[in-house]
Amino acid sequence: MSDAVSPLAAPFPVLPPIEGVTVRTVRAGYKNWGRTDLTYVELVEGTAVAGVFTRNVCCSSEVELGRQNVAQGHARALIVNAGNSNAFTGYRGREAVEAIMDQVSAHLGAPREQVFVSSTGVIGVPLPKDKARAGIEAALVAAPATWEDAARTIGTTDTFPKGATATAVVGDKTVTLSAIIKGSGMIAPDMATMLGYVFTDADVSPAFLQQALSAVNLRTFSCITVDSDTSTSDTVLAFATGKAGNVRIENENSTGADAFAAALEQVCRELSHLVVKDGEGAQKFIAVHVSGAVSDASARRIGLAIANSPLVKTAIAGEDANWGRVVMAVGKAGEPADRDRLSIGFGGTWAARDGQPLADYDETPVAAHLKGREISIEVDIGLGDGQATVWTCDLTHGYIAINADYRS
Amino acid sequence: MSDAVSPLAAPFPVLPPIEGVTVRTVRAGYKNWGRTDLTYVELVEGTAVAGVFTRNVCCSSEVELGRQNVAQGHARALIVNAGNSNAFTGYRGREAVEAIMDQVSAHLGAPREQVFVSSTGVIGVPLPKDKARAGIEAALVAAPATWEDAARTIGTTDTFPKGATATAVVGDKTVTLSAIIKGSGMIAPDMATMLGYVFTDADVSPAFLQQALSAVNLRTFSCITVDSDTSTSDTVLAFATGKAGNVRIENENSTGADAFAAALEQVCRELSHLVVKDGEGAQKFIAVHVSGAVSDASARRIGLAIANSPLVKTAIAGEDANWGRVVMAVGKAGEPADRDRLSIGFGGTWAARDGQPLADYDETPVAAHLKGREISIEVDIGLGDGQATVWTCDLTHGYIAINADYRS
Repeated sequence: MSDAVSPLAAPFPVLPPIEGVTVRTVRAGYKNWGRTDLTYVELVEGTAVAGVFTRNVCCSSEVELGRQNVAQGHARALIVNAGNSNAFTGYRGREAVEAIMDQVSAHLGAPREQVFVSSTGVIGVPLPKDKARAGIEAALVAAPATWEDAARTIGTTDTFPKGATATAVVGDKTVTLSAIIKGSGMIAPDMATMLGYVFTDADVSPAFLQQALSAVNLRTFSCITVDSDTSTSDTVLAFATGKAGNVRIENENSTGADAFAAALEQVCRELSHLVVKDGEGAQKFIAVHVSGAVSDASARRIGLAIANSPLVKTAIAGEDANWGRVVMAVGKAGEPADRDRLSIGFGGTWAARDGQPLADYDETPVAAHLKGREISIEVDIGLGDGQATVWTCDLTHGYIAINADYRS
Repeated sequence: MSDAVSPLAAPFPVLPPIEGVTVRTVRAGYKNWGRTDLTYVELVEGTAVAGVFTRNVCCSSEVELGRQNVAQGHARALIVNAGNSNAFTGYRGREAVEAIMDQVSAHLGAPREQVFVSSTGVIGVPLPKDKARAGIEAALVAAPATWEDAARTIGTTDTFPKGATATAVVGDKTVTLSAIIKGSGMIAPDMATMLGYVFTDADVSPAFLQQALSAVNLRTFSCITVDSDTSTSDTVLAFATGKAGNVRIENENSTGADAFAAALEQVCRELSHLVVKDGEGAQKFIAVHVSGAVSDASARRIGLAIANSPLVKTAIAGEDANWGRVVMAVGKAGEPADRDRLSIGFGGTWAARDGQPLADYDETPVAAHLKGREISIEVDIGLGDGQATVWTCDLTHGYIAINADYRS
């Protein structure tokens, strides 16, 4: 974790334990630092798993193997390495992941494909196998850690630990979700994610868990961006231990399926917002609401064009209601739009309607809104019913300082 | 023009006059500044014209009318307003452009559609018709200006005036091209351009002039980016007065067609590089050379993904040979790539080959290269014969300062 905490930081919430899940953290020493950097999560037999992964074609071996393993639907362990992403390391990187899977699989007496590994940090350095092996040996006998310990241990350039929780009523049982995430830069998941983990005691079939996670992903992780740069290692996994004892949710028609999906969406939305709030250099959290597009997908792409525009992001950093830059970003999105039907607002006040600045536009409330930490941009395309909300942060000197002022 | 000149600035070259072209500059006072901000160029009767324009769907009336007018193939005048882009100003903006066209058309006794207007500056404020009218009245009787005057007068946040020249032998005549351009931020022309004007005394048919300009554009203006933000007003126009007296270049099979196209490409390449060298906050000029892609178009898209990546651009600003970020950008481009065939180098030294860091990689020459002003990134995709070069600049505190630290 970095020293200077984001001004948008949220306190770590009280996350309930999840029956069937044990968390341990140790220091493997992947970097020359004093902090813990290896998280080991043991999952009770029968735990269902689902996952969404980066679409970056240069993905890490962790992502490749995770994508394969998630297909069989069950998980017994999760290992997260911080400080080294092990991406772009060829066969040596793959061997390092397979060694971890073998070690944990042997310890648990579980199938190797039920062991999930994530790594985050520098690209291009093979994960040191000896440090991983010793770290896991220590983790297997370490005392249980808290969720907050785990949230800190998976972090890299994050400035605060991030977690979220929700409950859902499924039949006559209440199920609980506890979740953690890390991410700060190289954030533009686009149909995939960063490193996020959702744990629940719900009894859910792997197929429904995957279906719900994939659907929720499209409205949460795939709608955030910090810098338009899609990581090679993005991963979100959901684990369901079944220990709540609810009547199993087999599919979307099962009792409690909607409630569970809603709780999952709530947790994923909160996690995705926390990543944006810890965006490198972020001073403001920006929600871009797009309506009137020809489809929801089109609205999302327009929203991302706005949210990724350096000129829009620097304007918000400067507390400048520069709606002309928003017009520019709509126009470059490659989506249907009609300049003369376009309306732009900030914080609920329209600055321009139907392709023209409003004659009686009063910038006073907009200027006041832009001085806050949470900024809203409204865009009405005026063509159809498509809508989407995309979340991002401003682009500040802090981003440059983090990414250019020192050698990585 | 701004005060602090880009460290990449080039001295303004000696641009020859072009017979049939007269340039005048005046102060219309579009902003509260002392400098000239209206450029008037008169073209001899029979001047051929070609143009390429922004693909931003929220384009200005200037772009809409210019695109219409270029179809008839001839031009008598060009007016460039600096300080107000007149974009997103609805019918009032369109009326302002039409008033300029009417005024100049009446003065010259020429068809209205042979009068071309460009405007650059703030978005969303209708161009003041009275200032434009008075400015043009003054321009019609002003003394002729130099190319450098004109290059300064069309500039906005530019820190130095930009021009280029070339000659071509066409049959027994030598034809001359003189060209000026402005641009610094909101630069990602993508199949279009910024405000650039090429003047030549060559006798060229409008059809061939357009064909040559469109082809050259794909390898020059469409291969540069400063900040991935595509302007609402990008325009490049080429004017050919025919005064050189060469046997007319009717099409690509005419004598001298290749020589003329090569000279046009040289001028456009130089202009496009000058825009990057004046990129907002630029400290380094970066050429991204992509080879081995499945097609030239795919190579260009991969090159632009690298050139638009904030993490790559900040790494270069920090003189950091962070090739992992280049891998990430290749992977997110949405183009065919195979992680295990990918090679990355800087300044001619490979850092990684075939998906892995080189065992004997010596960073010394790379570190020395990155300390310079002109940086080269080489990427071999390893799949085919497609190649492209894309040019950009680094992302520095200067960009943030220009775009966030004050209200526009």
